[in-house]
Amino acid sequence: MAFSDKVSKILYGGDYNPEQWTPDIWEQDMELLKQAGIDVVTLNVFNWASLQPSEETYDFAELDAAVKRVTEQGMAICMATSTGAHPAWMAKRYPEVLRTDFEGRRRKFGGRHNSCPNSPVFKQYAKRLAGKLAERYREQKNIVLWHVSNEYEGACYCENCEKAFRVWLKQRYGTIENLNRLWNTRFWGHTFYDWDEIVAPSMVSEHFEEARSMYQAITLDYKRFNSDSMLANYRAEAEAIRAQIPDACITTNFMGAYKPLDYKKWAASLDVVSWDNYPAEGADPAAIAMNHDLMRGLKHGQPFLLMEQTPSTCNWLNDNRLKRPGVMRLLSYQAVAHGADTVMFFQMRRSRAGCEKFHGAVIDHAGHGNTRVFKECQALGMELKALGKEVVGARVPAKAALIFDWDTWWALECSAGPSVRLEYLEELQNYYRALSKLHIPVDIIGMEDGFCGYELIAAPLLYMVKDGVSERLEEFVRAGGTAVFSYLSGYVDENDRITLGGYPGKLRELTGIWVEETDSLPETEQNSFCYEGKTYSAGLLCDIMHTEGAEVLARYQEDFYAGTPVITRNRYGDGLSYYVGTRSGEDFYLRFFTNVCKEKGLRTASHDTVETAAALSEKGIEMTVRKKDGVEYLFLLNHSGKKQELAVSVGGKDLLSGREICRGEMFAVDAAGVMLVKVFV
Amino acid sequence: MAFSDKVSKILYGGDYNPEQWTPDIWEQDMELLKQAGIDVVTLNVFNWASLQPSEETYDFAELDAAVKRVTEQGMAICMATSTGAHPAWMAKRYPEVLRTDFEGRRRKFGGRHNSCPNSPVFKQYAKRLAGKLAERYREQKNIVLWHVSNEYEGACYCENCEKAFRVWLKQRYGTIENLNRLWNTRFWGHTFYDWDEIVAPSMVSEHFEEARSMYQAITLDYKRFNSDSMLANYRAEAEAIRAQIPDACITTNFMGAYKPLDYKKWAASLDVVSWDNYPAEGADPAAIAMNHDLMRGLKHGQPFLLMEQTPSTCNWLNDNRLKRPGVMRLLSYQAVAHGADTVMFFQMRRSRAGCEKFHGAVIDHAGHGNTRVFKECQALGMELKALGKEVVGARVPAKAALIFDWDTWWALECSAGPSVRLEYLEELQNYYRALSKLHIPVDIIGMEDGFCGYELIAAPLLYMVKDGVSERLEEFVRAGGTAVFSYLSGYVDENDRITLGGYPGKLRELTGIWVEETDSLPETEQNSFCYEGKTYSAGLLCDIMHTEGAEVLARYQEDFYAGTPVITRNRYGDGLSYYVGTRSGEDFYLRFFTNVCKEKGLRTASHDTVETAAALSEKGIEMTVRKKDGVEYLFLLNHSGKKQELAVSVGGKDLLSGREICRGEMFAVDAAGVMLVKVFV
Amino acid sequence: MAFSDKVSKILYGGDYNPEQWTPDIWEQDMELLKQAGIDVVTLNVFNWASLQPSEETYDFAELDAAVKRVTEQGMAICMATSTGAHPAWMAKRYPEVLRTDFEGRRRKFGGRHNSCPNSPVFKQYAKRLAGKLAERYREQKNIVLWHVSNEYEGACYCENCEKAFRVWLKQRYGTIENLNRLWNTRFWGHTFYDWDEIVAPSMVSEHFEEARSMYQAITLDYKRFNSDSMLANYRAEAEAIRAQIPDACITTNFMGAYKPLDYKKWAASLDVVSWDNYPAEGADPAAIAMNHDLMRGLKHGQPFLLMEQTPSTCNWLNDNRLKRPGVMRLLSYQAVAHGADTVMFFQMRRSRAGCEKFHGAVIDHAGHGNTRVFKECQALGMELKALGKEVVGARVPAKAALIFDWDTWWALECSAGPSVRLEYLEELQNYYRALSKLHIPVDIIGMEDGFCGYELIAAPLLYMVKDGVSERLEEFVRAGGTAVFSYLSGYVDENDRITLGGYPGKLRELTGIWVEETDSLPETEQNSFCYEGKTYSAGLLCDIMHTEGAEVLARYQEDFYAGTPVITRNRYGDGLSYYVGTRSGEDFYLRFFTNVCKEKGLRTASHDTVETAAALSEKGIEMTVRKKDGVEYLFLLNHSGKKQELAVSVGGKDLLSGREICRGEMFAVDAAGVMLVKVFV
Repeated sequence: MAFSDKVSKILYGGDYNPEQWTPDIWEQDMELLKQAGIDVVTLNVFNWASLQPSEETYDFAELDAAVKRVTEQGMAICMATSTGAHPAWMAKRYPEVLRTDFEGRRRKFGGRHNSCPNSPVFKQYAKRLAGKLAERYREQKNIVLWHVSNEYEGACYCENCEKAFRVWLKQRYGTIENLNRLWNTRFWGHTFYDWDEIVAPSMVSEHFEEARSMYQAITLDYKRFNSDSMLANYRAEAEAIRAQIPDACITTNFMGAYKPLDYKKWAASLDVVSWDNYPAEGADPAAIAMNHDLMRGLKHGQPFLLMEQTPSTCNWLNDNRLKRPGVMRLLSYQAVAHGADTVMFFQMRRSRAGCEKFHGAVIDHAGHGNTRVFKECQALGMELKALGKEVVGARVPAKAALIFDWDTWWALECSAGPSVRLEYLEELQNYYRALSKLHIPVDIIGMEDGFCGYELIAAPLLYMVKDGVSERLEEFVRAGGTAVFSYLSGYVDENDRITLGGYPGKLRELTGIWVEETDSLPETEQNSFCYEGKTYSAGLLCDIMHTEGAEVLARYQEDFYAGTPVITRNRYGDGLSYYVGTRSGEDFYLRFFTNVCKEKGLRTASHDTVETAAALSEKGIEMTVRKKDGVEYLFLLNHSGKKQELAVSVGGKDLLSGREICRGEMFAVDAAGVMLVKVFV
Repeated sequence: MAFSDKVSKILYGGDYNPEQWTPDIWEQDMELLKQAGIDVVTLNVFNWASLQPSEETYDFAELDAAVKRVTEQGMAICMATSTGAHPAWMAKRYPEVLRTDFEGRRRKFGGRHNSCPNSPVFKQYAKRLAGKLAERYREQKNIVLWHVSNEYEGACYCENCEKAFRVWLKQRYGTIENLNRLWNTRFWGHTFYDWDEIVAPSMVSEHFEEARSMYQAITLDYKRFNSDSMLANYRAEAEAIRAQIPDACITTNFMGAYKPLDYKKWAASLDVVSWDNYPAEGADPAAIAMNHDLMRGLKHGQPFLLMEQTPSTCNWLNDNRLKRPGVMRLLSYQAVAHGADTVMFFQMRRSRAGCEKFHGAVIDHAGHGNTRVFKECQALGMELKALGKEVVGARVPAKAALIFDWDTWWALECSAGPSVRLEYLEELQNYYRALSKLHIPVDIIGMEDGFCGYELIAAPLLYMVKDGVSERLEEFVRAGGTAVFSYLSGYVDENDRITLGGYPGKLRELTGIWVEETDSLPETEQNSFCYEGKTYSAGLLCDIMHTEGAEVLARYQEDFYAGTPVITRNRYGDGLSYYVGTRSGEDFYLRFFTNVCKEKGLRTASHDTVETAAALSEKGIEMTVRKKDGVEYLFLLNHSGKKQELAVSVGGKDLLSGREICRGEMFAVDAAGVMLVKVFV
Repeated sequence: MAFSDKVSKILYGGDYNPEQWTPDIWEQDMELLKQAGIDVVTLNVFNWASLQPSEETYDFAELDAAVKRVTEQGMAICMATSTGAHPAWMAKRYPEVLRTDFEGRRRKFGGRHNSCPNSPVFKQYAKRLAGKLAERYREQKNIVLWHVSNEYEGACYCENCEKAFRVWLKQRYGTIENLNRLWNTRFWGHTFYDWDEIVAPSMVSEHFEEARSMYQAITLDYKRFNSDSMLANYRAEAEAIRAQIPDACITTNFMGAYKPLDYKKWAASLDVVSWDNYPAEGADPAAIAMNHDLMRGLKHGQPFLLMEQTPSTCNWLNDNRLKRPGVMRLLSYQAVAHGADTVMFFQMRRSRAGCEKFHGAVIDHAGHGNTRVFKECQALGMELKALGKEVVGARVPAKAALIFDWDTWWALECSAGPSVRLEYLEELQNYYRALSKLHIPVDIIGMEDGFCGYELIAAPLLYMVKDGVSERLEEFVRAGGTAVFSYLSGYVDENDRITLGGYPGKLRELTGIWVEETDSLPETEQNSFCYEGKTYSAGLLCDIMHTEGAEVLARYQEDFYAGTPVITRNRYGDGLSYYVGTRSGEDFYLRFFTNVCKEKGLRTASHDTVETAAALSEKGIEMTVRKKDGVEYLFLLNHSGKKQELAVSVGGKDLLSGREICRGEMFAVDAAGVMLVKVFV
């Protein structure tokens, strides 16, 4: 049973740590949370040291009491397993549970996310704890979610990890000869004759800086291995829970576009995706939106959970600005607008001491509800209560997709060359932002996902083309789809080995071009091109290419490659394949995708034309749509910081204000305002 | 007997290292130093390896000769103990004497300040050496001062330190349960069940950057422990000296506002405070002055010693500018103006090789007295000789105090949030600078010091309020005193635990406000407020507050909290309590304190009005006063770089030029000029 | 037999790694390389792991095949020894072969240049491999060059190195007393009583940052020791080769002005100097030229080899710009113009994977010759073929010399003071650039080299004056030569001990000045001086000096030392000695050297006047000359980026175009164009 089917409204709540407080505070909290409309709390996130005071002993009394107290309030529980930080006694007795860092230093007890994922001791006790919790609370019916560990992150480089890495490699490559071939170890005399000769790639072996490696194939596999190691940790706990509670809904909280973990691979092992949204103040709304869409795409469009956000301020940014009045609500609805079925906070009550005592909470150190933040939380709680079952479980009807791939991200950014300034996320955001400004619903998918049902697939920086992907892209375009590629695409296989014969390798026939060379421009230099009569910038990397069937849409205007193609379009079967051979500016991507979308007749969220949709973006309005049982929900989110007047091509009723709007009628949305329009059919 | 009572003039001299030179050079040096009016030399600062050539052997012959030679010249001696750098043989035989650094690396022999303060071997031999020196030279009557070690600094994170830390904690907390409670270890599952589970907080445990910790309570206690460990080193040596020479005057050279060591706590164990003044070229004179006042305040206003300054240039700055002609003299008198009873240099003769061969000295590599620097030193030497007993032992009659606290400094700057740009010293300097520009004599005191006798206490960033402090502040204000507080005050107790119930915690009643939230602005953003008809900037952190009895002096002008209070004044008993809820600019602090001082009728150094005093500051004139036996000494220091005309409200005689000045008469002070006016009663 | 006598033309080729490719690719490569006019390939650079698959086994079959295949094509071979990277099995079995880095971390297997130079295991097996290769291929007559290891670089700080360092010190200093005296260990109590107490200077002992030391004498000797250690590695391999092939021509590839290795000392052990030229795109042509001249000077003007350059792009720069059309050819001829007798590339074919897959090659991933880069390589190949024996072996007839010294470089830049912004290379480039713009041929020599035959010697930053050097400089000037010195000269001896008595120490009589003090200006400040009626900047460091016989050419205009000398000229015997007491700008150095060269009547490359020569520089034209058997070859290199019209004072025939030019006739040189004029006698 999907999470959305279990709940009768958008759940509202978040992390609560009764273990940090005395019982009298618990009572005050319950009262305040009830006032705020909180109906779910996440318990037991960092509690291992209390639950297991020694190797032989477990003690659940305090947690029992907390569960009981919360249950009496009629709240649902998201039960965490506490394995995000091991106890100090364990680190003392078994130093192997501590990580060895990228500099080769064995760490000591401290912080959190501190366990080596390949420590047998950690693995044994983490799994055992998850099992014991599930056994103890399996009859606790208000546990709607199991939350394994917390924000898995980082990596370990210890000897246990090295040993496990070798086993992982044996499973992947079978023989050392095969590994040598696929790692191309003849380069720099790296031939391995025995698995034991292989060490973890780090600052004391293959890396010349944290991100950059001298041996990409090894680094790439270690990143896969590390992600898989933590996934194995997650799965072990999930299995221990499932063994007790077969229909448990199990998750762990992701962190958006978090590089070290291949969430796409993880998602298959989660019953529902949940994530923690902590944008920096002033972050581009499209960058936040892209994270939501990425999270939604991990499980093929299934609604996800907003597990954490701050009600007011973070503590770990350089400048921890307050969320301005209304902004917490706005960002909450933005999550829902992109597919979230919960709105949850870190945290219910602000800690008294420790790293996060400056982090915002629903209940502040003041301890009462007479604060701006509490009142905003309360107002939202009432609104969500009134909304009821509306929207819950609704899907985003996207016909456009953006390909996002962790392997590609890793490979591109651990390379030596062609430019240190190339960042995978930045390029994908450029493409996503244009589609977002046109209010075209977008799915973010993996290159292994099905392409069927989409009309447009954007695949910028498709540097790595895994087996079968080029064939499936060809099939997609041949059948009438539109594909968009960028510079530095089609270069390598899954081991970061170049596809010989000319770039973009396996995408060459589909794009109808051959890229001979790529120029790398310093930050202070630009080339340019003319596209539809207007000049746009070209920078960072400039492909110098020859067409092999493609039509030239724009040519460079400067330098020795002036006059050579930079933007091309190739007719392939019944479809079109675009190639954008450089990094351009926001104005270009908007214009380019306006044309691509018009040509393809893609529907905007509001059924407006793309030009009208773009005009709304000028006003700082984000527009998205979710759909359920034939009903469309149109979200209008005002990120502009001031009141805006607008109209849309559909009519409906704003579920938040109760106001009806007519097709084409002008209406106003306040600064930080939100409309959730149930569209009239 | 206080140091000041032992001397018949301002002593003049500094570090001399005969061990680096041959006897013929000694002879030249004696001749030159005599010419320069030098009457005290510091011997034996880095001599351990020579004094103790092996574990079993001591050899004082060379030092005997140096002492004899210096004594024959009639000079006084400041005898150092040489324990600032251990011998290489000791590091080789007992690696435990070497420190383990913040990265967890055991260091090797090298540099200086290189000993682990908790190494039993180091402690044993350091104490023994101090004792042997005292025993040998106890009859050497011209030793006016014992100088233990040298510029204690840094920290160690080795296993011996960890073990000693646990003992220190046991003494502080008694039980592990009490420690868990006061460290709030329920946060992030940090509960300790055994003292041995506790490790030193460092980059391999609790820190995410050098300054910032994930567990403030642990970091805070480790800083206390490290400071205490070195203090114990100091005390052990001091006791060994005292055992031989009961009336020895013992000190070690401090370094101004040096963060790692709680000098306030140390000062009780020193007979006299001495310090090394190395401002960067172009440093704000008020920042230097604040260091002097801080040093003077450590022992409740007792005169201190200027132990080191460079006669010309440093070697360890990025750009080691020469002190311009006259500046060495100006800075020497600035020290005296703030309470120094010696003027001493590092160093007498410039080293031939090693780290400091580019560091200035009285006698340069040229080896003769025909240099600008030597001649300036000589002129000052003559002047100090002529001055005789004047000023020596005089006190600064301050009615205003600034609270400075190492624990608060540590706690604030190891936090995660609210702003990485918040620096304790910078804020205190803002407050100090305003009072300095008004020429109001200021004592810098600890929060444990008595408040009695002051009329104004400024306590910016009083983030930590130790037990009893708020009560004593209330008593001070109730009795008619004026207190000034800033944003981010009253937050925590001595363990960095928030005082619950609303900020500023224990200062809430005294200030008559409740701070609900604090906004953290990036460097590029500002709010503003209008105070007495003029607009001033507000930035960094902006408290959003409610008055609870206080009067509003200024309100924010922008953003969603426009119109809320930012500057308040609360009448409490017979006194006033001000609260400045943000970081503003220099113009504001000057205006603000002008009003506060006027209201309070505080006397400036020259008995001018505060407005007149501020006008002198515009000319770059610093003015201070010292007082002895009813005599007032007024110091006028021209930092402006050019000649200035001025007048003051007192008459007297300039002891340096012999010139008399009348009350209100205009007179000139040269660029870098100094006047030391003995005020007519 | 010199390398130049062995070859009948400028050899053309570079690194080729058949071991990375399958035999079918070998065949394609041979065909393409033949088309490109390649006649030499460097084989076996990183092949150790393949040649020695285990401790007991060697396998040369694949290398045999590669040698055979290349030989059949009639190509010459540069045979590398593969010891630039040890095999993984060796690191696993003998961790001692791995380096310990500057942070004290034992490294793991990875990267390259990864061997400890003092590992007995590494030394044994590296030498054995070189011997085996030489034995196997000693009859292979087309091996024109043996290439030991590859780009020796870096340093090791392990215990084996420390032990070897102590042996090295014993040999240098004889007794520990002598070492203590010359290291001035009385400073900071560093006296050593036993050699074993001495440790490697690193971040965990004497350094406070990577470049800067607290004990310069130790750091300086460790740099010497490390350079010597690798030189010993080189020599051991070279001896093993020589034992098999007495007339082998042996080299290793240098890297221009590479700080860690004292190439001047190394050069005596090389039969011919070779180096790898990788300027950043946009690098000043004079900076590249200076590297060439430095390399040529290592063996007293003997022609050198350009061992590596990229045909198109690097991969390890921040921005890896393509070499623009013609630039590869231009830089190739620039190398020849400065004394190169080969033009070689890294690499023949671009690697499929690994760190350098983005590095340019003659044959790209596309795998065919239809690329811009291949065609440019091919065109140059044809040109060099046509050139035949011309130029080969010709010498540069320089009458001006610039002194370059590794010890001085090390000592200056490991110091603490007087300015962190002082860079040895930058200052030397300022002087070199001026002479280059005047087209005065310059030799770059060591201070131990003979001064005889030169008319002008520029010795900026002659901070260290080794034994006998000042006497030889005096002799040079006395006999009529001109010498030019700068600030911060004459300070120290070979152990970085100050020459007492006044700066510039041993150069004081020769320069006729005494430098009393040196001011260090921050980046934002400047002084100035007037020279020949024009004002020039003075910055960074400003000597404040007194003349002692010298004539004052310019005086400071500002600050307290306004009016004191900054540029002086001293007549000494029949010659002149100039002193430039500060860092000035490019305009000054050009004007200054114009005067110095005119006065001395120095001949420019083209026999033009210095003014005419400087005018050509304004057009971006570089001009150099080589001479053989009475024939002069004049090189004209257009770095300006556009076509230039010019004339020169000699007539001759351009060997590249076949065109004749007459004395004084105007002719054009294309952008990136080159003329190689065989001058009519």
